[in-house]
Amino acid sequence: MAEKMLSPEEIEKLRIKEEKKAAAVAANAAKAAAGGDKKKKEKFTLKTPKGTQDYSPEQMTIREELFDTLKTCFKRHGAVTIETPVFELKETLTGKYGEDSKLIYDLQDQGGEICSLRYDLTVPFARYVAMNRIRNIKRYHIARVYRRDNPVMTKGRFREFYQCDFDIAGEYDLMIPDAECIKLICEILDQIKVGNYLIKLNHRRLLDAIFAICGVPEDKFRSICSAVDKLDKSPWDEVRKEMVDVKHLDPAVADKIKTFVEMNGKPFEMLERIRKSGLCDSNQDALAVLKELDTLFGYLRCLGVADKVSFDLSLARGLDYYTGIIYEAVVTDSDRGSIAAGGRYDGLVGMYGSLQVPSVGFSIGIERIFSILEEEALKNKKKIRQNATQAYVVQLDKEGDMEERLKICNDLWNAGINAEFTYRSTPNSRKQFDAARDLQVPIAIMFGSSEIETQALKIKVIETSEEFIIPREGFTDKVKEILKELESKPVLSVPTTTTTTTTDVKTNA
Amino acid sequence: MAEKMLSPEEIEKLRIKEEKKAAAVAANAAKAAAGGDKKKKEKFTLKTPKGTQDYSPEQMTIREELFDTLKTCFKRHGAVTIETPVFELKETLTGKYGEDSKLIYDLQDQGGEICSLRYDLTVPFARYVAMNRIRNIKRYHIARVYRRDNPVMTKGRFREFYQCDFDIAGEYDLMIPDAECIKLICEILDQIKVGNYLIKLNHRRLLDAIFAICGVPEDKFRSICSAVDKLDKSPWDEVRKEMVDVKHLDPAVADKIKTFVEMNGKPFEMLERIRKSGLCDSNQDALAVLKELDTLFGYLRCLGVADKVSFDLSLARGLDYYTGIIYEAVVTDSDRGSIAAGGRYDGLVGMYGSLQVPSVGFSIGIERIFSILEEEALKNKKKIRQNATQAYVVQLDKEGDMEERLKICNDLWNAGINAEFTYRSTPNSRKQFDAARDLQVPIAIMFGSSEIETQALKIKVIETSEEFIIPREGFTDKVKEILKELESKPVLSVPTTTTTTTTDVKTNA
Repeated sequence: MAEKMLSPEEIEKLRIKEEKKAAAVAANAAKAAAGGDKKKKEKFTLKTPKGTQDYSPEQMTIREELFDTLKTCFKRHGAVTIETPVFELKETLTGKYGEDSKLIYDLQDQGGEICSLRYDLTVPFARYVAMNRIRNIKRYHIARVYRRDNPVMTKGRFREFYQCDFDIAGEYDLMIPDAECIKLICEILDQIKVGNYLIKLNHRRLLDAIFAICGVPEDKFRSICSAVDKLDKSPWDEVRKEMVDVKHLDPAVADKIKTFVEMNGKPFEMLERIRKSGLCDSNQDALAVLKELDTLFGYLRCLGVADKVSFDLSLARGLDYYTGIIYEAVVTDSDRGSIAAGGRYDGLVGMYGSLQVPSVGFSIGIERIFSILEEEALKNKKKIRQNATQAYVVQLDKEGDMEERLKICNDLWNAGINAEFTYRSTPNSRKQFDAARDLQVPIAIMFGSSEIETQALKIKVIETSEEFIIPREGFTDKVKEILKELESKPVLSVPTTTTTTTTDVKTNA
Repeated sequence: MAEKMLSPEEIEKLRIKEEKKAAAVAANAAKAAAGGDKKKKEKFTLKTPKGTQDYSPEQMTIREELFDTLKTCFKRHGAVTIETPVFELKETLTGKYGEDSKLIYDLQDQGGEICSLRYDLTVPFARYVAMNRIRNIKRYHIARVYRRDNPVMTKGRFREFYQCDFDIAGEYDLMIPDAECIKLICEILDQIKVGNYLIKLNHRRLLDAIFAICGVPEDKFRSICSAVDKLDKSPWDEVRKEMVDVKHLDPAVADKIKTFVEMNGKPFEMLERIRKSGLCDSNQDALAVLKELDTLFGYLRCLGVADKVSFDLSLARGLDYYTGIIYEAVVTDSDRGSIAAGGRYDGLVGMYGSLQVPSVGFSIGIERIFSILEEEALKNKKKIRQNATQAYVVQLDKEGDMEERLKICNDLWNAGINAEFTYRSTPNSRKQFDAARDLQVPIAIMFGSSEIETQALKIKVIETSEEFIIPREGFTDKVKEILKELESKPVLSVPTTTTTTTTDVKTNA
């Protein structure tokens, strides 16, 4: 019976053992590679820590574009942003994550406070709200969090990964901020075009009421809830086995739970079905929650997103701190699991002091979205432009004038034009054009001895090979005009300067 | 003799002792505060770890604006960006920071690899270049780094703080990328308006040549260099004391060093002075470096920044890995120390493998710049706008129509307009206007029963109290027009949407 089931402690021990083995193998490999090395030079394991990765310029381009889109969406709803330290006092994180606490990274005790890397952005947010005695705030936070989990890099599961959170904290009227959160998730998913999606929605108090109706003892609510949470990955039989064999639930009670967790569907239809079934009639709390959900669904209809929601009684969400609605967005035409999730947590801020600040929010599973977008970019073989250079200064004569080249660049930079040139003092002109093409720079600005003589510059539009001559005096205005014109042509992708101020850079006399 | 001087180990021990004391005091205070608390509720120390801080929405607004400015400058020079993990394998950091290595934060050994938080962005960059066998790259990186130093929060010295690095790696011709780095520092400092500044510049090989000329034994070069590095904070007598008493340098040699390190001035004038003095004539390497500097200064003149540079023989820079020019930017009308610093490090990438990639770059001391900017904002009592909301939807009748309110907001959001409303179902109209004013939202969009009846909306420009009525049908186009018009008036600060795409949000049918 249940022989194959390991306790979390046993799993943890196995993991540590596995890791030590892997580390030893790596160390031996490094030693072997060093071989008969007689030099004093040390050998390094050239890698990033397990479960972490570097982001290349190409990946960063995709990431920053996505971050900008997300920020635009958050700001559209009036959100501000905060930043918190990457590590917190360990006690700040203690008792917030249930079974997952074992995944927290600790800093070594080097004298002083005991700290841990943040596990999510929600707990630091609650700590921030409590510490600053903030009564209401609507904030977003895009930052990395840390989990000593088993990484599956190909599926976008890392030990260090970005989270992207939006939360509304404050004492407000029923379901209004909750509805806005769901609307905002839809806005984001529509805008980033991840494909068709569905938002599964349930309510923690309804789930508790269901457990009560089925006859689950109250002290087993959270552990049975954890079991239900596995239904999106495991079939009912396995979950039932866990309930009965591991968590010692009466099999008849487990079977009753099944009747409920099998129910899901369109919001108002589900409300109707549950009411008609009479299954909840015996429980006042269940009836109250259903009424609250009726209000929420009404708001969602006004916000045009009711049809994106599936009211799903099997949705449980692992974290302990939820107290109201819970939800998870899943892409329906792939098996990537949830790409956004959240819910209401009215007690979390109060865990840090006397101030109670009810809150609701969500987290976007940005790493999964990245892996979708990167896969697509790979499939389309789209070359992603990583720089924003607008002009490449080309010296035509090999034994040319380095100083003139620098002066031209200097004029471009001072005029706020993004410009590059080759770091060779005696450059080859073909190589310079190759570099410009490789960087996807729209125009080249060329000069040789004849241009210096006539006080002129030659402009070449790289894409069309069109060339023309402009006077050296005040040439930056003309370059700006050309760039503007090219920008308006959809064929060419000219980067726009993302300058925050529109004034030119001050010229250093 | 030297009784009062403590070794780094002793200082470290004292620091740990002090911290333990502070931690104990804090714990006792917390216990006392908990007092006769009979509830089971745990008491938390509500704080961020020592040397770290939260950034409020107001601070984040200043920070993000500054980051945007910096990114614009970096992109103007064709830089791409990368991201690396917040922690590295400990061995990646070992042997890179000299005496400062004791300040590295370690992660606890929880089974698996031994890791440390990154101490700067340069070493991870070198590791990245080596690991990916990159032959040339020009990248910027804005991210936080970690140093277990004694924090002085008021002076912008933290244990967790942002660094903002720009580096050019690649085998290039003499002094060309070096000159661009110095030009770029000037562009940045000019643009962020920190006041007058000077870039102190020296050369590591020249410093070594000077030590040789003075008769410093070769095995003392690095430790004497560390002593010279303290000259910006300590007077010569103290530094001399360290050289002679602690580092056992011949007093006559120390006095010779003084003649050199007292010299600083305008680039070409200094070259002339050194040549005329004949002080370096005996050392071929010194003469070679002076010739290289002549090339650099010529380039700096072309880039219009030669007059920002002070060639200063006392500049040493603490880090071990520099091999060429070194520089530090200081604000001349305050005593904040350096706000940007860098240099050439040709050997660092090679420490990770066989590939040698010469590099040059700098780091902007962004925390110091923030503290300057924040101080200024405080002095000017400027209220910093933290949100980007463009329209506040106001329900005029207390017993109003919640659903209509949501529908109006929904239309605004779907049209890409940043909109907010109150989360009260029965709102007070004065409080709604107060909220709009408090958020500095430019316009209010109002409706009551009469507007619903006539299918209209009332618009109010908050700043001028100007009001007009527009039809409900297609009202978002009209709102966009109004916002555009207000934006063009300099009196009103209307936030522009920073949307990356110009298309509207897809409407959810």
